[in-house]
Amino acid sequence: MLEKVKTIQDLKSLSVTQLPELCDDIRKKLISEVLESGGHLASNLGVVELTVALHYVFDECDKIVWDVGHQSYVHKILTSRGENFSTLRKKDGVSGFPDCEEDERDSFNTGHAGTAISAALGLAKARDTLGENYKVVAVVGDGSMTCGMTYEALNNVKDTNMLIVLNDNNMSISGNVGSATLNMSRLRVGKYDRNKERLKRFLLKIPVLGKPSYKFLRWCKRRAKLGYVRNSYFDNFDLKYIGIIDGNEIKDLVYYLTKIKNNVTKPTVLQIVTKKGKGYEPAENDPESYHSVNKRGTDATAMESSHVVSDTLCKLAEVRNDIVAITAAMAKATGLSAFKEKYPDRFYDVGIAEEHAVTFAAGLAKGGARPFVAIYSSFLQRSYDQILHDVAIQNLPVTFLIDRAGFVGEDGKTHQGLFDLSYLSQIPNLKIWTPSTYSQLSQMIAASLNENCPVAIRYSRNLLTDMQDFTGSWNVLIPGEQCKLKILAVGSRLANTVVQAAINLDNVEVVNVTTVKPLDYNYLDKIKPNENVLTLEENVVQGGFGQSVSSYLSGKGIRVKTMGVTDQFVKHASVDQQLEEFSLSSDGIKKVIKGMLSQT
Amino acid sequence: MLEKVKTIQDLKSLSVTQLPELCDDIRKKLISEVLESGGHLASNLGVVELTVALHYVFDECDKIVWDVGHQSYVHKILTSRGENFSTLRKKDGVSGFPDCEEDERDSFNTGHAGTAISAALGLAKARDTLGENYKVVAVVGDGSMTCGMTYEALNNVKDTNMLIVLNDNNMSISGNVGSATLNMSRLRVGKYDRNKERLKRFLLKIPVLGKPSYKFLRWCKRRAKLGYVRNSYFDNFDLKYIGIIDGNEIKDLVYYLTKIKNNVTKPTVLQIVTKKGKGYEPAENDPESYHSVNKRGTDATAMESSHVVSDTLCKLAEVRNDIVAITAAMAKATGLSAFKEKYPDRFYDVGIAEEHAVTFAAGLAKGGARPFVAIYSSFLQRSYDQILHDVAIQNLPVTFLIDRAGFVGEDGKTHQGLFDLSYLSQIPNLKIWTPSTYSQLSQMIAASLNENCPVAIRYSRNLLTDMQDFTGSWNVLIPGEQCKLKILAVGSRLANTVVQAAINLDNVEVVNVTTVKPLDYNYLDKIKPNENVLTLEENVVQGGFGQSVSSYLSGKGIRVKTMGVTDQFVKHASVDQQLEEFSLSSDGIKKVIKGMLSQT
Repeated sequence: MLEKVKTIQDLKSLSVTQLPELCDDIRKKLISEVLESGGHLASNLGVVELTVALHYVFDECDKIVWDVGHQSYVHKILTSRGENFSTLRKKDGVSGFPDCEEDERDSFNTGHAGTAISAALGLAKARDTLGENYKVVAVVGDGSMTCGMTYEALNNVKDTNMLIVLNDNNMSISGNVGSATLNMSRLRVGKYDRNKERLKRFLLKIPVLGKPSYKFLRWCKRRAKLGYVRNSYFDNFDLKYIGIIDGNEIKDLVYYLTKIKNNVTKPTVLQIVTKKGKGYEPAENDPESYHSVNKRGTDATAMESSHVVSDTLCKLAEVRNDIVAITAAMAKATGLSAFKEKYPDRFYDVGIAEEHAVTFAAGLAKGGARPFVAIYSSFLQRSYDQILHDVAIQNLPVTFLIDRAGFVGEDGKTHQGLFDLSYLSQIPNLKIWTPSTYSQLSQMIAASLNENCPVAIRYSRNLLTDMQDFTGSWNVLIPGEQCKLKILAVGSRLANTVVQAAINLDNVEVVNVTTVKPLDYNYLDKIKPNENVLTLEENVVQGGFGQSVSSYLSGKGIRVKTMGVTDQFVKHASVDQQLEEFSLSSDGIKKVIKGMLSQT
Repeated sequence: MLEKVKTIQDLKSLSVTQLPELCDDIRKKLISEVLESGGHLASNLGVVELTVALHYVFDECDKIVWDVGHQSYVHKILTSRGENFSTLRKKDGVSGFPDCEEDERDSFNTGHAGTAISAALGLAKARDTLGENYKVVAVVGDGSMTCGMTYEALNNVKDTNMLIVLNDNNMSISGNVGSATLNMSRLRVGKYDRNKERLKRFLLKIPVLGKPSYKFLRWCKRRAKLGYVRNSYFDNFDLKYIGIIDGNEIKDLVYYLTKIKNNVTKPTVLQIVTKKGKGYEPAENDPESYHSVNKRGTDATAMESSHVVSDTLCKLAEVRNDIVAITAAMAKATGLSAFKEKYPDRFYDVGIAEEHAVTFAAGLAKGGARPFVAIYSSFLQRSYDQILHDVAIQNLPVTFLIDRAGFVGEDGKTHQGLFDLSYLSQIPNLKIWTPSTYSQLSQMIAASLNENCPVAIRYSRNLLTDMQDFTGSWNVLIPGEQCKLKILAVGSRLANTVVQAAINLDNVEVVNVTTVKPLDYNYLDKIKPNENVLTLEENVVQGGFGQSVSSYLSGKGIRVKTMGVTDQFVKHASVDQQLEEFSLSSDGIKKVIKGMLSQT
């Protein structure tokens, strides 16, 4: 069936009864291709029916905003990107997130959670201001209901004509938290819904009258859900509420969406329940593991930074009962699952609420506890104000564990950890440490407990295994005392690459930078005016490590060349390709080194 | 009475009937001293009874977190800072916000809205983890109920023993917005409360039985409010709710707070209604104008940047119906009141919701409208992720109007606009313009409409009146073609100061920097290796303008000295004193210039 659906018009020409087959085909395509390419599997399997129904009912000029955006694969398959879907997340291929550069039916780029209602409200208000005429739909997962931004947006919807589909899979990334969402769960598991299937089967068994009774009851139920069901949470915002609908039942979805499209002018919330991983048993049984799958061939047993975080924190917490750990809906990914298991009373999953996470940690620190906040680099951007205003001004001992720093590869623009060195360096009182090996990471986690100030430890997913210990000063990997060129590399990949690049060169000294703030002034002060410096970092150059070094050495007649990401966003590709793009591959670095050596 | 209350123990030794007199005394002190020193008057007048009652009922070891913190004057008067309260907001004097360096009974520093429940929850969890024993109270204004952070925190309170006092003055800074708060207003103006006073007066007039009936009815009411009143919003979070209480009735407050302190172990919300400006008629009648008063002697009619924003936007909106304007609860302060008046359909006050404000603007821009987002520099920090992730990645034409950039003077650490050049410079696609005169500001607002990218215009409260127009390149104020030293100054104050400092010097060229990103490369490329550069900015040096220049010129043998705020937070003082602290006064700059000239 999917073969026949090349355009949205093809889709619209199908009858409703043909849609389940189409959904099956899409599901098969998803399973086979995403297991190959890697990507977000479970969430996309959950929204097959929803996506098909949305495009079946709404028009091509209507705007759908996918919150978080990792569940937009089905949308992409239906809108011009089905044929080269096998290029998913590859360089120059289909992005794993909505991207309006790919297709204008990706109405708004997303990546971080909780932005969809704000964006959709903006689109709807622009439409009304400019006198245009289209529908706006925001598709929001239940996890994003824990985001403050979602609340701020709901609080502003008022009488704007738009639809919010709340896709409730009781999941976010790793199970849901928080009281407001608990409230939704209570609604969801209501007696009515639990008995739905049983009743349907019972009625259909009754001869002659069974089918009409079932149909009549279904009609009653649908009318009731359209008109009379209320939800105390959405009532607070004066929103029309319709729910709860089985979001994997395509016929129901088409029915309700059509009614809403044609009759409803009030802002409306349609709450549906979908099964994450639907149709692929391993994913249904363990949706967290299948939330994001690695591309085929990835070694699933490889060591990761999160394992070190896990082991180290658990060990430290054994002897110190003031240690507490905080995650924003990513216990497993950040390495806190074991801590959660062992010390449930000292573990906090606050939901997708990075802002609260940080100020909450500040409160914990102020109260005498020793908090570790584990948030990916890109997501920590949302806490910039809280790190500065709540943690740093009071100089509170909070340790930030910042995984996925630097290039992240296939997730692309919205997920790169390429800004943290800049947005953290400008904050007074904060120290920034950058481990290159697993043991350095472990040592830094322990060492942060001796600091009376906030410490940010930033690292990539995988680190090296052998290199000097963390001592607080920089590690010279290849010494060259009287050399012309000092190469200062931040992070495991660049340290490793530069060692490879420089191993046969005279006249260079290679340094593993373990502290970005403060800099190792002892080391820098020893550099002589006739020597040159090359800095390397997986971070934007502006405001990063290299500029700190350049600024410190300014006026001493030392030439500092800063390498990193020049002023641009970095698209999806493999990490190696991304490094190459900025001349940070072995060849690229070698060329720069040779150039610098020949000039001196 | 205030004379007798030197310590909290003195306060506790008073009888409840003596408290109203104490409140009167405090009110008088507030009115006379704040009108003199300047500061937040209306909000402090509103919480006199609440603050006295909290300290009367709770113990000194208990922790009170004041959301926003500008309403903490009464708390300061009662805790060791009453005697030198006349130094309020002055250099080395009492800070206008909670500051634990001043007194440890300032349990948590605040300044930006919406942090109190997160911080209080952290304190409460630290207490429980460490087995300590104190009460935690968060005092939160209704304005902060529009903050996403507040919601994120409420969603995590669960069964933590803490009290949230919701101080509902139907105000935030400029009247409240949003549906959730409307819901609270509906509760507040319920028939019951409106008739309270009338009933009381009626009953007390009845001879003999009148007083006992009134007392009996009051008892019934109090029991009902303690046990049976519900609020649908807080029900969502499983919080015990008590309200609505008259927050300017000290006896009622003491009664309810005592009950809560002694009997309630569940997390509790106590909703009180207070009158902003209470006891000072001009403030009661116009609480917005008396929200923050200038120190005596300030010229209230002086020109301000916000006036230019107001005039320019209104004029542009006359001819372009795609222009929309967004503020986060500060219409008047940012200059959008007139726009709101003239174009109510194109004006959005989203509440204290800076994150939503920016993504909402991104949606508006994506939908074809031309949004202007007016948020103070310090508050815009909260939108760092949204500027980067929602506006800049999609390169959307949103103009940010960033007032209070640079030193802000008396508000101090939490309100300084000293980070924006850094946190904005690192974001790709974004342009940063820095007007020094009112006409440059006006020209830039208009010019931003010609850009197909985000533009940030940052400026201080007051600007200069005469200087060259904005052309897109930097303005040479004092030319000196063959000079030894190029001085590049960002912003009105520094441009003005440096002209004064350099006017009699040969060998210097003075430049007014109107664009921080991109830099004026034409100008920079003309600087010769034997020339030196001095950069001046009201911003942290790290990641700021000077480092951009230094980095660009690196390797050309040009010495660049960057002046600005070194790596620290800047306390309250006058702007002149703050400038002086970092050698940015006329004398300080002159000294540096002479030093640089003598070295070359």
